[in-house]
Amino acid sequence: MKVTFSPIIRKLAIATLLALTLPALGEDGSRLWLRYDLMEEPLRSHYAETIKSLVAPEQGETMAAAIAEIDMAMEGLTGRKPERTTLPVAGSLVIVTLKNPLARQLVTKEELAGCGNEGFLIRSLQYRGQPIILIAANTPAGALYGTFRLIALMQSGNPLGDLHLQKRPGYKFRLLNHWDNLDGTVERGYAGRSIWWNHEGDEERLRELYTTYARANASIGINGASINNVNASPQVLTPEYIDRFARFAGYLRPYNMKIYMSVNFSSPKIIGGLATSDPFDPKVRQWWKDKVKEIYTKIPDFGGFLVKANSEGQPGPQDFGRTHADGANMLAEALEPYNGIVMWRAFVYQPEGDDRAKQAYTEFKPLDGQFHPNVIVQVKNGPVDFQPREPFSPLFGAMQKTPLMAEFQITQEYLGFSSHLVYLAPLQKEVLDADTYARGPGSTVAKTTDGTLYPSRHTAIAGVANIGRDTNWTGYHFAQANWYAYGRLAWDPGLRAGDIADEWLKMTFTRDERFVRKAGNIMMRSREAAVNYMTPLGLHHLMGWDHHYGPEPWTWFEGARPDWLPSYYHKADTAGIGFDRSPRGSNAVEQYFSPIREQYGDPGSCPDELLLWFHHLPWGYPMRSGRTLWNELAYRYTDGMLEAREFQKIWDMLEGAIDDKRFQEVKYKLKVQAREAQWWRDACLLYFQTFSRRHIPAELERPVHDLQELQKQKFDLKHHN
Amino acid sequence: MKVTFSPIIRKLAIATLLALTLPALGEDGSRLWLRYDLMEEPLRSHYAETIKSLVAPEQGETMAAAIAEIDMAMEGLTGRKPERTTLPVAGSLVIVTLKNPLARQLVTKEELAGCGNEGFLIRSLQYRGQPIILIAANTPAGALYGTFRLIALMQSGNPLGDLHLQKRPGYKFRLLNHWDNLDGTVERGYAGRSIWWNHEGDEERLRELYTTYARANASIGINGASINNVNASPQVLTPEYIDRFARFAGYLRPYNMKIYMSVNFSSPKIIGGLATSDPFDPKVRQWWKDKVKEIYTKIPDFGGFLVKANSEGQPGPQDFGRTHADGANMLAEALEPYNGIVMWRAFVYQPEGDDRAKQAYTEFKPLDGQFHPNVIVQVKNGPVDFQPREPFSPLFGAMQKTPLMAEFQITQEYLGFSSHLVYLAPLQKEVLDADTYARGPGSTVAKTTDGTLYPSRHTAIAGVANIGRDTNWTGYHFAQANWYAYGRLAWDPGLRAGDIADEWLKMTFTRDERFVRKAGNIMMRSREAAVNYMTPLGLHHLMGWDHHYGPEPWTWFEGARPDWLPSYYHKADTAGIGFDRSPRGSNAVEQYFSPIREQYGDPGSCPDELLLWFHHLPWGYPMRSGRTLWNELAYRYTDGMLEAREFQKIWDMLEGAIDDKRFQEVKYKLKVQAREAQWWRDACLLYFQTFSRRHIPAELERPVHDLQELQKQKFDLKHHN
Repeated sequence: MKVTFSPIIRKLAIATLLALTLPALGEDGSRLWLRYDLMEEPLRSHYAETIKSLVAPEQGETMAAAIAEIDMAMEGLTGRKPERTTLPVAGSLVIVTLKNPLARQLVTKEELAGCGNEGFLIRSLQYRGQPIILIAANTPAGALYGTFRLIALMQSGNPLGDLHLQKRPGYKFRLLNHWDNLDGTVERGYAGRSIWWNHEGDEERLRELYTTYARANASIGINGASINNVNASPQVLTPEYIDRFARFAGYLRPYNMKIYMSVNFSSPKIIGGLATSDPFDPKVRQWWKDKVKEIYTKIPDFGGFLVKANSEGQPGPQDFGRTHADGANMLAEALEPYNGIVMWRAFVYQPEGDDRAKQAYTEFKPLDGQFHPNVIVQVKNGPVDFQPREPFSPLFGAMQKTPLMAEFQITQEYLGFSSHLVYLAPLQKEVLDADTYARGPGSTVAKTTDGTLYPSRHTAIAGVANIGRDTNWTGYHFAQANWYAYGRLAWDPGLRAGDIADEWLKMTFTRDERFVRKAGNIMMRSREAAVNYMTPLGLHHLMGWDHHYGPEPWTWFEGARPDWLPSYYHKADTAGIGFDRSPRGSNAVEQYFSPIREQYGDPGSCPDELLLWFHHLPWGYPMRSGRTLWNELAYRYTDGMLEAREFQKIWDMLEGAIDDKRFQEVKYKLKVQAREAQWWRDACLLYFQTFSRRHIPAELERPVHDLQELQKQKFDLKHHN
Repeated sequence: MKVTFSPIIRKLAIATLLALTLPALGEDGSRLWLRYDLMEEPLRSHYAETIKSLVAPEQGETMAAAIAEIDMAMEGLTGRKPERTTLPVAGSLVIVTLKNPLARQLVTKEELAGCGNEGFLIRSLQYRGQPIILIAANTPAGALYGTFRLIALMQSGNPLGDLHLQKRPGYKFRLLNHWDNLDGTVERGYAGRSIWWNHEGDEERLRELYTTYARANASIGINGASINNVNASPQVLTPEYIDRFARFAGYLRPYNMKIYMSVNFSSPKIIGGLATSDPFDPKVRQWWKDKVKEIYTKIPDFGGFLVKANSEGQPGPQDFGRTHADGANMLAEALEPYNGIVMWRAFVYQPEGDDRAKQAYTEFKPLDGQFHPNVIVQVKNGPVDFQPREPFSPLFGAMQKTPLMAEFQITQEYLGFSSHLVYLAPLQKEVLDADTYARGPGSTVAKTTDGTLYPSRHTAIAGVANIGRDTNWTGYHFAQANWYAYGRLAWDPGLRAGDIADEWLKMTFTRDERFVRKAGNIMMRSREAAVNYMTPLGLHHLMGWDHHYGPEPWTWFEGARPDWLPSYYHKADTAGIGFDRSPRGSNAVEQYFSPIREQYGDPGSCPDELLLWFHHLPWGYPMRSGRTLWNELAYRYTDGMLEAREFQKIWDMLEGAIDDKRFQEVKYKLKVQAREAQWWRDACLLYFQTFSRRHIPAELERPVHDLQELQKQKFDLKHHN
């Protein structure tokens, strides 16, 4: 494969250099966390002396990308690129893979075996009595990841004294899912239009864009992206679009990223001209085989298909009386020869069905064991839909013969779009660390999906991207942190959310200790704040019908799908509030293993945070706090609002610690968040008060909004996309 | 004069009785403070036994009104009307004027001399060994006022054990000014359309309306009303409109209220067909004489004219090179034979003139001594225009040979319309009690206008009415308090604002002690709260250009009258803020007497509350609090906002203490107020921050609004009228 990206990397280096000279003016967020600005002393000299030269003898575009990156980073951080030498000398950074003889002088094959395909070692060594740093891996991909990690250590201000790092990813497939439509809009995206589709920019600018995108992903270990909406257009399988996928694959390939495609199950009929798309029809099966072959001809390292089938109106195998397994296996067969995978989404529910929270499990659990080995069932983290807080999906741990992958949302569909600062790593950690008890205590969601408990050829994780054409990529500087943290957790689910926040803050803003501490404090409190001002105590799905932004717990209209109405979920009445999923109700708790089942099934042992998810309780129900349920609800909502105000105060203390442009932009968004936290809190409390008929505790601030006025407001979705 | 109102009073009695049986349902505010609901025991029996019978031997419509009122009140409060007897017996209430022989048996002429024309005595007496209560006065008007006072004592729950009350009004003319246009709109009125004009209701309903209006005014001692806008239509002087004034005069007459008329100075030309309206033209003078004669033919007790001349575009004598005195005297001559008066407004200012705050003084002070004795110069309480806080107008005390009358606004043009709870008695007291030092210490504004310091045939006071066609009369239940308190202070400027509030609360809502204490607490804090969230530290005129409702300290547009722009007043710049009216600036302080002049002229001695009215000070100016000026400003604005929130909390504690309808209506308005207090505070702080470039103190809540977004908002005035 020809190395075609050098010019663009050179261009990037120039852009970075320019940014260095004008650091205060240029901080528009476009560089993400890949900011290689001149370090202050003594770190600058320390890095410059520790990495004076570079030994990177291997060819190939991925190795070239690693070299270009370290050159750019060193030039930015220290003002000087390392010299290239052929043999290590004092102050050399050596980047090698196992196949290089030099590697074998510095590290054993056994040591490298622990790195797997994409892992790496970073070590401080003596080479012939001279201090050097080694990045070693089994593959160029591993070398690239190691290089980015070493750069991150420097960006974060760590000394390079005695490095001894060995890392390998927790999941094999670490994907972004872009819900981008071919017309350039982004479903539930709040950072402008699609970077992929209907984007007719100057070719060089696009190449720069995709290269930065790939660098950012490689820097955190993301190795694949499905780049069209799961509500997929059949058009993507036309030769014209396959060519576009191939072009994108070319941009991403040096950075070890594969392209995936969301496909429409009716494609054989719609674009193939067949009479049916029935997976049992031989012509249909052949059509898919031919189509896959065509793809691989153009994209030899194509990743595979992502499928949303028989879900929210999308076609699927059930249209022909077949099962999800039947449908997935047909595609899997076609992809198998090329090592492609199928990610088949379990996000299915019918309005006429049982409790929506039960339906994915009800439908998929019986299929366990029927899927081909290269099918991964992709399961949203919770049983409903990316709510501010849900329990983990009961499918995790329950499907033991089928690889499952967790799907998280990075975009904040239900968490304030790109207007609210909500750091999502604590949410993701809460899910990954949740104990399913599938194989006894310690059977966390992470362990049920990363191969620990159920060995599988394939382990994977997906995050719905929050990326768009906005200059700062994600619409909000702090939303970049959710992209970053998702990637870091996909690589290592054992990382701590706070550590990731600190690292990201240092790389993205400044290493000023006070800033990192205070801004990190906001980040770590932000998700619980949002839960509290939006949907505390296990409430969920209280948002506006179509926009999913503001509160509309009251939404109702003639002919509405009942399971899209908030009342389906909160079930507030004069007696109480909450969805009874205990054995006396929908018995959704039955889908969990013991002792979770019993713990969640009894309001006395169910955690407060999930109480109204699993129980319908009287307004006067005595909570652990000693308050009634109604009063506790009022307290939580108020706490959330006060937290949002507190974030403003904390942020304002940080003026001057970072560039004014981003400071002001964040300040503005925090205002919006505080204002809207009150909107949420007032709307929900006032609405539920029409049922509870109880007072808001006298010591709490009163609502300033009027319920009837709020109910009359029509939200303008265009504002956000 | 024929007593024509008995049927309507009978009707009212029935309405009151109905209201009694359904007290909780009917509380729409339409009864104002004239609520005669059944008292609880033991007060009910106490009142019933103390006033078992009524001795009221005199004829006349005003005496009949008094009798009807006490009948209605006793029937409402105790369930039983007093019997009519001709001679006092045990438990008689005797209502008499001096001319009745019975009066002379019970009270001396000398004692009654102290009551003047409109005062009264209320006494517990023994008549032939039997306990009676006496209301005695020199006139039926005095007897009426005494009757209302006795009723108020009962409504407030006072025992009638040992009464010994003697009252006479502080001002001779106690007027409401209605700024009502003939098309039925009300300038700066926020309680619906005019009760007077373009009001084509059922005659009986209108009669009921005007009678309730007159009763309410009589109950607090208001004895006159100008019922058309000071921006006067010449039409009012046409025979058709004079007839309407006559009809209104008939409704009010039994309650001792006179009708006044705002006239347009160009009337001779516009409706008289003359070539000019020059006051030196004999034909013009004759035209006015003829017109006045025509009025008095139809309205024998017509009160006189109110004139806004050469002010804000209104015509006036200066159009012909004559002075305000020339114009006023022409009208005074015409009215003199009928004992009519001219109230000539001093609210004049020109855009090209000196500091607007100085202009009224500059123009009128030299005319002192030139006005006819039946001219009263009507002076707005402050030198600009009814701002939340102004210093008193320097004309008070300065014009020593001319009767001056204070004009207050009851309608809340600059104080949140009928959306904000702002009790204005503290503002009015602040002005009335302000020491002008015109004749040394103790020369309060009240004493300069009530005849104490400058004896005059005429003393007067005016309040711009907040009355409209809304069911509750004033658009907000609590705005009724401003009508009430104005009347009480016009009668007795020595009353305390808190006492008036308590009395009004008891009569209007409930005598529940906790309610009165807490609601009274809100009222007494409310004006300072509004000053703080709108215009603290002497700031003024920061409101929106046309609507005068919300904050627009930034307003500017091409061709705007500079003295209508907020920047004319706040003069904020990077150096500081405030209007320098010290001797180094416009020297407006010179218009005040010593030592006020020196006190206000020096920022070191100028009270914080007026600091930026008189001084332009640097943002870092050290305040008495130890804070910088900027920080103090931030604190005051924040305090105001927090106060508005606190009012909500206090009010919510009162649920159940009063009827739910009014409770909820007030609760709603307090929400709006809290929301808008933040709007005001955020807008002003953010705007001034663009000059100060200082931080809002870290411990204070941050703004949640964005300056640019606020600046883009267009306010819909129609919402409020």
